[in-house]
Amino acid sequence: MTDIETPPLPRRLLAEFLGTALLVAVVVGSGIAAAQLSPQDVGLQLLENSTATVLGLAVLILMFGPVSGAHFNPVVSLADWFIGRRAGTGLSLSEVAAYAVAQVVGAITGAVLANAMFGASMALSTKERATGPHLLAEVVATSVLVALIFALARTGRGAMAAPAVGAYIGAAYWFTSSTSFANPAVTVGRIFSDTFAGIAPSSAPGFVVAQLVGLVVGVAITLALYPDAASSADDVVVPHPAPSNSA
Amino acid sequence: MTDIETPPLPRRLLAEFLGTALLVAVVVGSGIAAAQLSPQDVGLQLLENSTATVLGLAVLILMFGPVSGAHFNPVVSLADWFIGRRAGTGLSLSEVAAYAVAQVVGAITGAVLANAMFGASMALSTKERATGPHLLAEVVATSVLVALIFALARTGRGAMAAPAVGAYIGAAYWFTSSTSFANPAVTVGRIFSDTFAGIAPSSAPGFVVAQLVGLVVGVAITLALYPDAASSADDVVVPHPAPSNSA
Amino acid sequence: MTDIETPPLPRRLLAEFLGTALLVAVVVGSGIAAAQLSPQDVGLQLLENSTATVLGLAVLILMFGPVSGAHFNPVVSLADWFIGRRAGTGLSLSEVAAYAVAQVVGAITGAVLANAMFGASMALSTKERATGPHLLAEVVATSVLVALIFALARTGRGAMAAPAVGAYIGAAYWFTSSTSFANPAVTVGRIFSDTFAGIAPSSAPGFVVAQLVGLVVGVAITLALYPDAASSADDVVVPHPAPSNSA
Amino acid sequence: MTDIETPPLPRRLLAEFLGTALLVAVVVGSGIAAAQLSPQDVGLQLLENSTATVLGLAVLILMFGPVSGAHFNPVVSLADWFIGRRAGTGLSLSEVAAYAVAQVVGAITGAVLANAMFGASMALSTKERATGPHLLAEVVATSVLVALIFALARTGRGAMAAPAVGAYIGAAYWFTSSTSFANPAVTVGRIFSDTFAGIAPSSAPGFVVAQLVGLVVGVAITLALYPDAASSADDVVVPHPAPSNSA
Repeated sequence: MTDIETPPLPRRLLAEFLGTALLVAVVVGSGIAAAQLSPQDVGLQLLENSTATVLGLAVLILMFGPVSGAHFNPVVSLADWFIGRRAGTGLSLSEVAAYAVAQVVGAITGAVLANAMFGASMALSTKERATGPHLLAEVVATSVLVALIFALARTGRGAMAAPAVGAYIGAAYWFTSSTSFANPAVTVGRIFSDTFAGIAPSSAPGFVVAQLVGLVVGVAITLALYPDAASSADDVVVPHPAPSNSA
Repeated sequence: MTDIETPPLPRRLLAEFLGTALLVAVVVGSGIAAAQLSPQDVGLQLLENSTATVLGLAVLILMFGPVSGAHFNPVVSLADWFIGRRAGTGLSLSEVAAYAVAQVVGAITGAVLANAMFGASMALSTKERATGPHLLAEVVATSVLVALIFALARTGRGAMAAPAVGAYIGAAYWFTSSTSFANPAVTVGRIFSDTFAGIAPSSAPGFVVAQLVGLVVGVAITLALYPDAASSADDVVVPHPAPSNSA
Repeated sequence: MTDIETPPLPRRLLAEFLGTALLVAVVVGSGIAAAQLSPQDVGLQLLENSTATVLGLAVLILMFGPVSGAHFNPVVSLADWFIGRRAGTGLSLSEVAAYAVAQVVGAITGAVLANAMFGASMALSTKERATGPHLLAEVVATSVLVALIFALARTGRGAMAAPAVGAYIGAAYWFTSSTSFANPAVTVGRIFSDTFAGIAPSSAPGFVVAQLVGLVVGVAITLALYPDAASSADDVVVPHPAPSNSA
Repeated sequence: MTDIETPPLPRRLLAEFLGTALLVAVVVGSGIAAAQLSPQDVGLQLLENSTATVLGLAVLILMFGPVSGAHFNPVVSLADWFIGRRAGTGLSLSEVAAYAVAQVVGAITGAVLANAMFGASMALSTKERATGPHLLAEVVATSVLVALIFALARTGRGAMAAPAVGAYIGAAYWFTSSTSFANPAVTVGRIFSDTFAGIAPSSAPGFVVAQLVGLVVGVAITLALYPDAASSADDVVVPHPAPSNSA
């Protein structure tokens, strides 16, 4: 990560803020639309919600990746620091903290924006989600997310992260009982909408703890499968291109 | 944009006319099919409509991009002029005007074609859509569309615009309450079908104004995230290749 | 099309036979499954049918493209001859005839295979489809298919044909009232299954005529948009690689 | 397959174990979710199940391919040995045996994990599936899977296997009456969940035999279409990159 290639931190934080806001707007907004338009079948609602998220998340990674790496997720930023710390690549811990603040503020903003676009009342979610199977599911969902992102980064395939991460979340909506939050910032944001995709404040801490456990598992899987540190370890999600690069 | 690479204006206008006509035919035609075939669930109708549009829009950008840039949207053409004006790339204002006429005429033609393929009566839509939340949604939908297209163009990734723009619209159908028109020409075209995807004439002006506001916001986001003008700024959506280039 | 690169005709005919058989097996088989499993909503049946076809067609083009060009469609083979005849590229007319026979026999075989996999009785379809709007739809569907394939071929992007043609057909299922047969061989094959995707023998001739009109329109659009003959005109759908090429 | 490029066998077996476990977790877990959330329409359940599998399988191939080739399937490992044996590429028979053990143990683990994430009771499936049409369908499904994977490998397009194999399985869920198991390890794993995607122990042997017949047919198709052994024959599914390669 040379000084020439890396955009200044404020611009990166803007990208993390906007990207996380739009990600939560996609998740919450499409959840509201699905619940309104398909009232008779919760599975169909989830299919609509997950399909919109697959497409939207891939696009947001394309849009913001060259600026900030398109983490949108404190767990990814932490893993970026941990995995990249030996090679001097990756974020510093103070950058991780700044990213996390931008992500959480963005996530809350996105939930509020979705509420506004649908004329939904501003209220905290009352949807309890923290059961044992759901917490196990969050560990699985987060660990595979981390392992996927860094498997791609360590094999020079960061440019495939946009479709791959979108596709993964689309599968994880369905194969995990929790519908795969897998993201502490998004978990906090989803407290702020009492709609289909919301989560009650009392369930959020358990989800975040499970996600942090998943982070540890995911990093362990990454290092077991790809033990050799590649020079591309800092190019998480998508490379930071110089402006004249072509893809 | 050299004279050698750019096709003559009439051919580009033909591409914009055909592309916008087919885009509206996809949106309106699949909306008619969905409403006829899935009468019991509006969400399922929208899923069918949005899935067809994701696929169709991506294909149309591939098909027409090398000729005209595959704008199909006056907002995109305006942004192309504004962002490219400093470097002498991009459309001229008179070309923008010609593009816009081709796009609007194409959009109306596409609605009429869809009506004809389904044997639907020719009548103006009576579907009122211009509520406050819907107008906010159009601002959001258009601004992200513009920022996406020019983020790709300014980072040399214009070849990814076809799947990316298709995917974005697929998400935006769901996360915006307005189902994301995000296009003044398409908005006008959709007046001309009194079916699922139609819009009443009285709602169209508000939508167009909101889209122009979204244009300004989208350009601002683009310049904030990617302030350095790249030489590829004129390669909107897809590059204009010389015939012997291979992708 | 050098002698070195082009596989011998029998092998190409085997590819056209197998590919068209599997394409019809996908279309008819998924139609049977959809009608059995989702009896209450025809739109949902079509969504299942079209989704399976998008995925299956893309895969079949990848699989057979390097051998025969993966036409699976006499209209495409005819256009390949016509567009390539000036440059001495493309199929000869006798090859077109051989391709067409392989395609039609393959299509019938595929319908029989689908019937067998689902234990469906062997009977000709009784589904009348040849209305005026449906025939107009077949003209549109076929012309855009031809224009798409040759737009890609003439701009050196033949490698994108697999996902692009799959996606196009997925959109065309929905935006054309006829569900977009767009293929005389497949039309004949679909006579041989009295199930969701079938077509009555009396409706087939009208469909084929409409598809031939679409061929003419599609070639005209191709030449209007991309008048310069590219050396890649013979690389329809996917290039014929030498074995050592990498993609 | 040089010693430098190929990871040590234990690491490859870990990749096959984890990948197959997650594949079965996706198939079984999304099946449970679909059956719970869409109780009224089996077709919608299958659409949810197949969509999750398309996305999840593609991602798992991306994740584990550079380590082990991402077979996840004894039939693929056997074909890799057979097709690669002449050129000295491909797995050895003892490696095939080790892969198969890792795959089967992984598959069972994945079913147990899915049950745990959804709080489902641990019980063997009671779903009988082995009818004549279903066994024919397994032959077709497996043979096309094998032919697809090795068509890509033999034409230097192994990097496209992730989306292509995912897409193929998505089509095969629908066009084969058996929903396309096409994998002996996954068949065994799916015994261990008495849910939507399960298979009764009494049906499994017939499915496995049919899959082995499909293996033979698939290899025959591969060799008929692509008789020339390419040097890339060992790069099944995705190439084994050196760590510094970029995609």
